[in-house]
Amino acid sequence: MPLSSYPEFDAALAFAAESVERTMERLLPRSFPGENTGEDRVFEAMRYSSLGGGKRLRAFFVLAGATLFKVGVVPALRTASAIEFVHAYSLIHDDLPAMDDDDLRRGKPSCHKQFDEATAILAGDALQALAFEVLAEAATHGDPAVRAYLVSDLAKAAGAHGMVGGQMLDLLAEQQVGEMSIGAITRLQRLKTGALFEFSCEAGAILGKVEDSRRGALQAYAHDMGLAFQIADDLLDVRGRAEEIGKTPGKDQAAGKATFVSILGLDRARDQARLLGEQANRHLEPFGPKADPLRWMTEFVIARKS
Amino acid sequence: MPLSSYPEFDAALAFAAESVERTMERLLPRSFPGENTGEDRVFEAMRYSSLGGGKRLRAFFVLAGATLFKVGVVPALRTASAIEFVHAYSLIHDDLPAMDDDDLRRGKPSCHKQFDEATAILAGDALQALAFEVLAEAATHGDPAVRAYLVSDLAKAAGAHGMVGGQMLDLLAEQQVGEMSIGAITRLQRLKTGALFEFSCEAGAILGKVEDSRRGALQAYAHDMGLAFQIADDLLDVRGRAEEIGKTPGKDQAAGKATFVSILGLDRARDQARLLGEQANRHLEPFGPKADPLRWMTEFVIARKS
Repeated sequence: MPLSSYPEFDAALAFAAESVERTMERLLPRSFPGENTGEDRVFEAMRYSSLGGGKRLRAFFVLAGATLFKVGVVPALRTASAIEFVHAYSLIHDDLPAMDDDDLRRGKPSCHKQFDEATAILAGDALQALAFEVLAEAATHGDPAVRAYLVSDLAKAAGAHGMVGGQMLDLLAEQQVGEMSIGAITRLQRLKTGALFEFSCEAGAILGKVEDSRRGALQAYAHDMGLAFQIADDLLDVRGRAEEIGKTPGKDQAAGKATFVSILGLDRARDQARLLGEQANRHLEPFGPKADPLRWMTEFVIARKS
Repeated sequence: MPLSSYPEFDAALAFAAESVERTMERLLPRSFPGENTGEDRVFEAMRYSSLGGGKRLRAFFVLAGATLFKVGVVPALRTASAIEFVHAYSLIHDDLPAMDDDDLRRGKPSCHKQFDEATAILAGDALQALAFEVLAEAATHGDPAVRAYLVSDLAKAAGAHGMVGGQMLDLLAEQQVGEMSIGAITRLQRLKTGALFEFSCEAGAILGKVEDSRRGALQAYAHDMGLAFQIADDLLDVRGRAEEIGKTPGKDQAAGKATFVSILGLDRARDQARLLGEQANRHLEPFGPKADPLRWMTEFVIARKS
């Protein structure tokens, strides 16, 4: 069934994006008029790169997961904001000349093009610190054990055994075209994007203090959906046009980088994404119709055009 | 009285440096022989830049503060390690070509010279995440509220309103030689190095759940001692030789950067450091002789040759 058949999904996605954006806006540091302190340049760069764009998929996962466990909207939005801050910092650093060297992000100049490299490095660093500050503060959850748990899990997902490790593998992969197996690419993506997706999907369970098999089901969902997302991303990179995806297209291909598509070919990659999506949604059975937003999201990540 | 008259200080400084180094070594990610996972390149860079060097002043402050409030050695060492990870990440990023562009750190090639820029950016990012992971884990303190408090305070000290903001000001200061007042430089340093010093000095009180005036006294101590430290640092930059300070000397002067020394002159800067040191130690009076290690440290930061 095409996505346009789910009007509720569009509404839910727009609600997640708008409400997390408002929360992030309040949590970010700001300059006050007439008070030129100098360091507000880094505030501006943080706001430039984290506000006003993005599909906020990770925020959506947090909110959709939170509704499964009757978690309050403030804890969910603060947790979603923290994850989006980590995501924004990773994009700023990934775009740097020494990394992926990308001049465009979400259709705008990337942070180091709009400001400069030093400011971009610092804005990313400060966004990471802000994410942990937000999670640790009392407003995120009444139980400090839950806050400490969120911090430790996000730190693991973002660190050397998670997102940063995956980005390291990705940079090394560019130098070893053709030598990577599907297993190696799967592992790379599970670290680079999967770890943060998993944390986003599990956050609702953490906030609801749910430690049983339902948390495991969400983790399994996140794992399969995350891989489907990445294959769809690789397909977009091949087919995308700059104005559609808002970043430089065909970059992976130009760099001769091994991707799911370069190894599987277009058709098998498309089948694989579809298969993983079905597998992801099967993990949601214990939740019944309450998990429909997550099911729709699976369709969305596979079918998305940008 | 010269420092050599305090044999206990040398022992305490060596103990802090060795024990925090051992703790950091255990907390850092490692590669296992025969298990070449690729991302272990970032593990190596993290270890290269955070182990095997440094005076570990911040760790010393945590341990010295912890003894004032009967805090256990494991909580103190884990907190000290987290702070040293943040310090190490900040040095890696500060040394990058887009920032201070320094090829030497602690007498060795800086991280991006030893590895490459991308690996250095990632190693810094992962060290920051590791710091928060360590603080949030149960081994750091039995009370999760204390762990959440540590995370939120370290995040504030490291973020846009602390260390990162100070580094932003420092980069901008290079473009405005002669225009900076003593007040502006003091504010810059309070953010850039002072915020992390303050957190280091207060950490013992946080771990000991001490919220009274004693915590304020440690904060005031950290404030004055931190400025004395920075003036001493500026003096070292002018007089230092590369083999003594292990980094490129005279850099600030060459960059035409405003420092305490460029504004006050050598003699007044030296007097000011001494005065701030005396003021710092007066804040320690409520603690009696138990605070002697902190008093010795004040002498040390002012008199240090490297």
